[in-house]
Amino acid sequence: MTQKIIIIGAHAAGLDAASAARKTDRTAEITLITKEDKAAYSRCGLPFVLGGHIETFDDLVVFPERFYKMMKLNLLLETIVTKIDSKEKTVDITYKSGNKETLQYDSLILTTGADPFIPPIKGREKNGVFTVRTIEDGQKINKALETAKSAVIVGAGLIGLEVAVACLERGLKTTVVEFLPYILPVLLDKAMADHVKVAVEEKGMNIIVGKGAEEILGVDKVTGVRVAGEVIPADVVVVATGVRANLDLAKDAGVELGRTGIKTNLRMETNIKGIYAAGDCTESIHLVTHRPIMSQLGTTAVKQAKVAGINAAGGYSTFIGAMGSWITRLFSTEVGGTGLTEFMAGRSGIETVSAAIVSKTRADYFPGALPIRVKLTVDKETAILIGAQVIGGEEVTQRINVLSLAIQNQMTVYELAKAETCYAPPVSETWEPITLAAEMVIRKLK
Amino acid sequence: MTQKIIIIGAHAAGLDAASAARKTDRTAEITLITKEDKAAYSRCGLPFVLGGHIETFDDLVVFPERFYKMMKLNLLLETIVTKIDSKEKTVDITYKSGNKETLQYDSLILTTGADPFIPPIKGREKNGVFTVRTIEDGQKINKALETAKSAVIVGAGLIGLEVAVACLERGLKTTVVEFLPYILPVLLDKAMADHVKVAVEEKGMNIIVGKGAEEILGVDKVTGVRVAGEVIPADVVVVATGVRANLDLAKDAGVELGRTGIKTNLRMETNIKGIYAAGDCTESIHLVTHRPIMSQLGTTAVKQAKVAGINAAGGYSTFIGAMGSWITRLFSTEVGGTGLTEFMAGRSGIETVSAAIVSKTRADYFPGALPIRVKLTVDKETAILIGAQVIGGEEVTQRINVLSLAIQNQMTVYELAKAETCYAPPVSETWEPITLAAEMVIRKLK
Repeated sequence: MTQKIIIIGAHAAGLDAASAARKTDRTAEITLITKEDKAAYSRCGLPFVLGGHIETFDDLVVFPERFYKMMKLNLLLETIVTKIDSKEKTVDITYKSGNKETLQYDSLILTTGADPFIPPIKGREKNGVFTVRTIEDGQKINKALETAKSAVIVGAGLIGLEVAVACLERGLKTTVVEFLPYILPVLLDKAMADHVKVAVEEKGMNIIVGKGAEEILGVDKVTGVRVAGEVIPADVVVVATGVRANLDLAKDAGVELGRTGIKTNLRMETNIKGIYAAGDCTESIHLVTHRPIMSQLGTTAVKQAKVAGINAAGGYSTFIGAMGSWITRLFSTEVGGTGLTEFMAGRSGIETVSAAIVSKTRADYFPGALPIRVKLTVDKETAILIGAQVIGGEEVTQRINVLSLAIQNQMTVYELAKAETCYAPPVSETWEPITLAAEMVIRKLK
Repeated sequence: MTQKIIIIGAHAAGLDAASAARKTDRTAEITLITKEDKAAYSRCGLPFVLGGHIETFDDLVVFPERFYKMMKLNLLLETIVTKIDSKEKTVDITYKSGNKETLQYDSLILTTGADPFIPPIKGREKNGVFTVRTIEDGQKINKALETAKSAVIVGAGLIGLEVAVACLERGLKTTVVEFLPYILPVLLDKAMADHVKVAVEEKGMNIIVGKGAEEILGVDKVTGVRVAGEVIPADVVVVATGVRANLDLAKDAGVELGRTGIKTNLRMETNIKGIYAAGDCTESIHLVTHRPIMSQLGTTAVKQAKVAGINAAGGYSTFIGAMGSWITRLFSTEVGGTGLTEFMAGRSGIETVSAAIVSKTRADYFPGALPIRVKLTVDKETAILIGAQVIGGEEVTQRINVLSLAIQNQMTVYELAKAETCYAPPVSETWEPITLAAEMVIRKLK
């Protein structure tokens, strides 16, 4: 009998779950449901359309219509799921037309994602205040940027900084306001974050740390933001203070929630047999601390989704956890990290030793060699690598992958210092900066 | 009592051995002896000076004079070692002046390197025939290129191709002749090599494979090379057919040789107590096959040298082996590898499964995304990664390091497919090409 798989959500996680399910079961009836009018576009690309690197928002649509046909996927756009009945194995939906229907499923995959969370700043309802999550959000900001002269971005996380870069690239006077004492506060340690701060400030970004946005000013339309008593003029305000998982449907259906999102086993199955979850709405286990985390990275979403899709279609696959390996490019500075920061490790009760070095991305004598800064953090007792941060002018991404792999293999810093790496003058130094950083940690361990 | 350490050779290995010895023993008397008139320059940089990327050969000198002073190293230039007496612990040297001296040592480190090997091609003694090893070689070729119109490079290994690129960049009609059936024959499998071939041919390089250089033509000065009966005109001929370790001194001193170079234990000590070896003259153990190899890479040289230097100075350190992780850039194509090729694995008696994929270096929609090709080879029985080759327009170097680390950690392709990687549209794809290649191997394993 043909099995029916319903996926609520149709973005990175939804589509990868659908693909995996299709590859596992060629005959299953697979339906994706989303409230949006576009499916499967890259949210991560939004700041780069705003900055003018990518021509149109439509370019972000990763899967063309023919993909759905080829994969035989039913895609229901602008359709809202109002209820899941896990006993009857049904979902109630409302189409854009207002028509309602109840769909039957054998397996259900929740990829309901997350929505931006706006802290209760006075004036946040004003015209000209935006969040960045959907193409619609992007289009609204894009329109506003056409005439705006100045922008304030609230929140110096990845999205906040990426949007701030875009605003500067569009010629706006741009200020980022971060309540915590340094930028990228969840992702970097202070000293590393301060290097990034200097790099973006050199490009003209104004950054205020350690102070909150107290009020968004303006009669109807935004005119500025008050920060620590001072008024910063702004025609556009973008609030990028994080997201919250969309859990209402799951909760109502009796799906067990963890500390940060939907709880699953290694097969991405929830407490209710036949209901799976993946993506931003789903809790992961941290590969180092083994504690629940909300990863909210595209890479985690698609990996979870693939596992959920395979299992939902009757296959077998497992997802063992995440540790938030991330990367971005801010102007010409690439910055990324993996595992725990020194600060976060401390908060998890891990005693650490850390060291940072500065080296070059090419042989010192090779034109275009750029500085690169590598910080490693190890467990003091075992010398096993548990976290890394890298800032540099090029070739940072794959170094994060090197370090992520080292953590996943529980390599000690002694092993890492001896790891074989490759070298040619135009693309690297004889002594790879990662091994130099490992040597520096070893010296501090002694 | 102050210990005396003598190092024969003063390039990558010699200098790194000296540095490590100095850091281990602040008071040791450390002497480096080289027959050349310059020490510690980057041989790997020579082709890039020829190509005009680096201004002068002097830029390749990595350690300035003040380094020797700061590190208290005695550097004897243009000095020849004529004999090692391992019983008396002395070396006989002859200065440029002709003066002779006998120096006493407590520890001796052999970093005698390797010299180019020229096969017995008829006419190889003619003017205009060069090898590429020393700055002097580089200067001679550079002078010849000033007036030359055409070049033939014999040998399509790394150095051969890098020099061929330089010749093309200097405006010469350039032909590479490789006796074996494909370029980079020791480093790549044929299908991968052919992709590199196409890439450099598109830039104007003429490549002849499967045919040998039969004769170098010209009365006194080179005028051409005969290949399979056909004459290829050439004002310059560069022979880059590999190097042979300089072993005479070691052999005469009774140092045990392996199949490819000086044999050492894990501490880089030879069969004679107190005599160490490192660099191109030294045999390594292959990390995958556990068989002796001649690595001849700068990275191996400096790692061995560091271990030799530490041990020679009374410390403790080990070098466990190498697997030839390499990288180069030919025009805008980056190409590298690590571990065994499919061909070499077969020759070592390993039954393998391999797969290759093509992906992009950035999100598909991000401008400037370039193709990248990843080939993985695993042991068929265990699914453990044993080799990898990558060709791409950017970000290849650190992917080789990722794959090198995977091999060193004996990761299976199943583990590699699940490895956490980082993603942002300007610098990578959501699904890292390495994990896609791993998936492809898994499909073939089933």
